Amino acid sequence: MSDFITSLKTRWRDRRSLLCIGLDPDAELLPTSLRKHRMPLFAFNREIVDATARWACAFKPQIAHYAALGAEEQLAQTIAHIKKRHPGIPVILDAKRGDIGATAAMYAREIFERYGADAATLNPYLGFEALAPFFEYADKGAFVLCRTSNPGSGEFQALQSGGVPLAHHVAMRAAEMHSAHPNIGLVVGATWPGEIAAVRKLAGEMPLLIPGVGAQGGDLQRALAAGLNADGEGALINVSRAILYAGGDGDFAEAAARAAENFYREINSHRRIPPAGSQNSASGRSVG
Amino acid sequence: MSDFITSLKTRWRDRRSLLCIGLDPDAELLPTSLRKHRMPLFAFNREIVDATARWACAFKPQIAHYAALGAEEQLAQTIAHIKKRHPGIPVILDAKRGDIGATAAMYAREIFERYGADAATLNPYLGFEALAPFFEYADKGAFVLCRTSNPGSGEFQALQSGGVPLAHHVAMRAAEMHSAHPNIGLVVGATWPGEIAAVRKLAGEMPLLIPGVGAQGGDLQRALAAGLNADGEGALINVSRAILYAGGDGDFAEAAARAAENFYREINSHRRIPPAGSQNSASGRSVG
Repeated sequence: MSDFITSLKTRWRDRRSLLCIGLDPDAELLPTSLRKHRMPLFAFNREIVDATARWACAFKPQIAHYAALGAEEQLAQTIAHIKKRHPGIPVILDAKRGDIGATAAMYAREIFERYGADAATLNPYLGFEALAPFFEYADKGAFVLCRTSNPGSGEFQALQSGGVPLAHHVAMRAAEMHSAHPNIGLVVGATWPGEIAAVRKLAGEMPLLIPGVGAQGGDLQRALAAGLNADGEGALINVSRAILYAGGDGDFAEAAARAAENFYREINSHRRIPPAGSQNSASGRSVG
Repeated sequence: MSDFITSLKTRWRDRRSLLCIGLDPDAELLPTSLRKHRMPLFAFNREIVDATARWACAFKPQIAHYAALGAEEQLAQTIAHIKKRHPGIPVILDAKRGDIGATAAMYAREIFERYGADAATLNPYLGFEALAPFFEYADKGAFVLCRTSNPGSGEFQALQSGGVPLAHHVAMRAAEMHSAHPNIGLVVGATWPGEIAAVRKLAGEMPLLIPGVGAQGGDLQRALAAGLNADGEGALINVSRAILYAGGDGDFAEAAARAAENFYREINSHRRIPPAGSQNSASGRSVG
């Protein structure tokens, strides 16, 4: 597979998809038919992935949902399945890691070598110097937390320093790195559309991973209006639970596919594909 | 086992130890005799733990060193061994987790239920609201990153907001919570003794986990002078590599025990056991 951003851009263009599907399976919400499976999370993910792949620009497993259950092998199998059956779709391992020196290198090894993920989410609190071992995997994506989707994210991320909130200091630093490291991106929650717009201005063309649509209440239209870059791309709209648990026991995969298609179409209905010379016109070109 | 802070205080007092031993085994640095062991990290840790336990107030395994190798079972066995053979010694799982809502709850389950650790290290970037699922385990310790030991830690942690650096905002918030949640603590690197002193002023009696002595070059004497509380306690001086790899192939456990004893004695030689009315006198009472 090519480097992360190339794969992602290919997916954005060829499939015209900005939909990132979060694989956060909850053992208590699995269909009854899978609960006695030897690898229930993997069995669930496999059906979800196969049913929704055509609508996805990326898959994003969240590692804690596997680690809490000692189900690392099911995470590994899930990623291996995506790579085997859907080789054009990059996998972002949502792990929000951050540590120093040799330990950061161990986390990078976990994410990129053990699991073979194409990108990771990272926590910037320790400074970008501490993230260097992740950036050394130059072909891998690195989404640095900027403004997170949770209600209390402003406690520190909105603290003003020199008239600039902490989240924007993080964004500016990522933007500085971006020309040398085109696989860097930022995480900004859909619950803060004003922040998405501000970060987009700082971030240039950088990809923004945008969680918080759906269960968390983020407004998709506002998130897209704020988060797209000048090419009408540049965003990954993450949806997890609203797709994974769209259906009931018998039709979970079909329901997930319908939900993914609906998100895909809704996202594209809000995309402003700019005509030449204007990036503000809302042409709302429909893409299916 | 009682709650974390009670166990820790008991250990501080009964064993008079402030030495936290980091269990960060590196497969490439293991004694040759253990490399063909079916569970080499566990076999190594078991000998290190048994050889050094008498000098330790806590053990601190760092999870990435296991996760990078798919060695979760060896981490679990290590913690189970400590709890079985050395039941008075609390285990801090160094994982630096931080995420939102349901995902934070999954990480808390990983650390406190799957592994049975007594405390965790946590990342505050997402705000204390996001850490609530960890604090809900009220008997478990929660060491929040404040000022980390790495050279670039000041990039964001030293950003001034309202004349106060970010790290101190984190410390103040932890201090606010401390009376209701006595198991909370902070992480401050030995490489920043001035910051340790400032954080100690903000943190009252709160335990400070202090890494960065030894390989990272932090000055033990200055860290202790700055970090002890009014009782001459309140600090956990973490040492990992300088103990784990103190010896050679044949004598690694004995060498680790000697190194641990030396750190223990050196720490206690610098402790200021305050006579009544003065917390500044350096009595240097030797404890063995």
